[in-house]
Amino acid sequence: MIFQCVADLRDFCCDLPVGNADAAAAAQKRQDALTKPPGSLGRLEELTTWLARWQGCAAPSLKRVTIAVFAGNHGVARRGVSAYPQEVTAQMVANFAAGGAAINQLARLAGADLKVVPIELDRPTTDFTEHPAMMVEEFLEAVDVGYRTVPTACDLLIVGEMGIANTTAASTLCTALLGGTASEWIGRGTGIDDRGWERKRAAIDTALKRHKQNLDDPLAMAAALGGRELAAIAGATLAARRHGIPVLLDGFVATAAVAPLHCLSPTALDHCQAGHVSAEAGHRALLRRLGLQPLLDLDMRLGEASGAAVAVHLLRAAIACYEGMATFSQAGVSGQNTDPFY
Amino acid sequence: MIFQCVADLRDFCCDLPVGNADAAAAAQKRQDALTKPPGSLGRLEELTTWLARWQGCAAPSLKRVTIAVFAGNHGVARRGVSAYPQEVTAQMVANFAAGGAAINQLARLAGADLKVVPIELDRPTTDFTEHPAMMVEEFLEAVDVGYRTVPTACDLLIVGEMGIANTTAASTLCTALLGGTASEWIGRGTGIDDRGWERKRAAIDTALKRHKQNLDDPLAMAAALGGRELAAIAGATLAARRHGIPVLLDGFVATAAVAPLHCLSPTALDHCQAGHVSAEAGHRALLRRLGLQPLLDLDMRLGEASGAAVAVHLLRAAIACYEGMATFSQAGVSGQNTDPFY
Repeated sequence: MIFQCVADLRDFCCDLPVGNADAAAAAQKRQDALTKPPGSLGRLEELTTWLARWQGCAAPSLKRVTIAVFAGNHGVARRGVSAYPQEVTAQMVANFAAGGAAINQLARLAGADLKVVPIELDRPTTDFTEHPAMMVEEFLEAVDVGYRTVPTACDLLIVGEMGIANTTAASTLCTALLGGTASEWIGRGTGIDDRGWERKRAAIDTALKRHKQNLDDPLAMAAALGGRELAAIAGATLAARRHGIPVLLDGFVATAAVAPLHCLSPTALDHCQAGHVSAEAGHRALLRRLGLQPLLDLDMRLGEASGAAVAVHLLRAAIACYEGMATFSQAGVSGQNTDPFY
Repeated sequence: MIFQCVADLRDFCCDLPVGNADAAAAAQKRQDALTKPPGSLGRLEELTTWLARWQGCAAPSLKRVTIAVFAGNHGVARRGVSAYPQEVTAQMVANFAAGGAAINQLARLAGADLKVVPIELDRPTTDFTEHPAMMVEEFLEAVDVGYRTVPTACDLLIVGEMGIANTTAASTLCTALLGGTASEWIGRGTGIDDRGWERKRAAIDTALKRHKQNLDDPLAMAAALGGRELAAIAGATLAARRHGIPVLLDGFVATAAVAPLHCLSPTALDHCQAGHVSAEAGHRALLRRLGLQPLLDLDMRLGEASGAAVAVHLLRAAIACYEGMATFSQAGVSGQNTDPFY
């Protein structure tokens, strides 16, 4: 395993590569010479510079895009916190394999390679209203699965998830990590009704009360209150950082999955962009807390990496302009006025 | 000409096709059967239904996408309201022809056919601080150019513009049509400084004062205070409505160009979506006034149809999911819980 113990993982998070500032500066310099008013492509310009920094190359590329969707099952599902039965996790994994899910279509459109990684679906995490969701060893195994999923030769990694009841795990983790009350962090997930929402809130309160003695560390929280697919997303995000691969995060669950990394080290997510802000209630606040500004805001709430898969096109647009546009001097276009009138 | 007089144009705006409600309902029905919680693709679902309505077909297509960029020059440019000299309009049209501009790269990436239509660049509109920008006949000619640019066999039309000083025309038109003060509707355009901003404001105040006796009609305002490329965008948008073609609007100027249509008939823009909200100061308020919710918010402010060209990918994502996803019954995925527990 990459990380033999929680201390290994913690040390890794606190000694991360910082990106290539020279590549970012060179990219910005080229942007400023292209035939447009400076800054007028807005976030597309920022994205190019960001890709350059984290790919370590002034000519960033998006030839090899990988979408990793991790799936897990959750003991807390038995508390009636989801609108769908737990078997839907495995059924949707089968749907991914058959090519029938939203992410299959979106991955193809985005020119991305889709890797679906189910993690022990027949062995749900423990119901964390009673015991820790995972023992530390189980947690590290799931982190390891995620870490090893990331190809070392890759230009962009997108992380997403599937797991009935995992918005409950994500909300519990956010409440523990970032404070506030459960009701501030929970939403309707796949579409739970008012009574289900109340069961969700109650489950979180119970869990936090039960485990509060053991929640002195973000990684301990991720083990006790998270899930295998969340742990794998954290592992994949760390692998990407190590291999020089920028990351697009998907929705609420994927963002909650990496929140422990941010809590360990405030720069741990600098190589990540939020692909979108979802309609799930806690996501906007979570992104704000992590200092991430979403690329899209389309009221999506499907998971499966679907929102981030749509955001890939924004990165492709950024690169297309950056690579293909003429400079002012190449095109013979006049620069800004220097006439005394102006 | 399509419209012989302003009354023809006004009558046309007040008797527009209403779209195909049956096609929209059929599209919504299919959405609800696909393997995702109902509504969880958010605006992607709405976009499919909208395309179905305006293409008049329950299986909407994006095979034939046309981007029309209209270019014009403005007499008011001599008031020092832009950061760039007027010759940049023609230089950028040459850059479009040579393939060096942002929109060339974005059109290619979006799989769109790019039509650039310069309109009498060597004959700028009259400086509207002194006289009407266009006589009615000139205005109708420009509307006609736009109308005739739209191919009748087309799945999606994107409208954008290029024209030094045209944010001043757009802001003037917005102030006249929608009220408020000039300073609420003006921004930095291509990047004017504080003194230029003040000249812009003063030009608008002068123009509104000079023409106030003759501004009793939205089309009269569009002629006196707009520009040829704005008139052409309005014409193209009307042609699209007539031919069953949904429209993506680009930024502030393109949206201001169609605002007179909305003022004549509140449903005139129902076949339009706002591709994005730009960083130009007045755009967000303008979209709100027109009841349009932008698809993207990326701090772009380039014009050239660039923001809307990026938004095409969201429509393609919507169609990809709609066409390719399995239904719950096809995939053997369980529906929502009906267990008494839930």
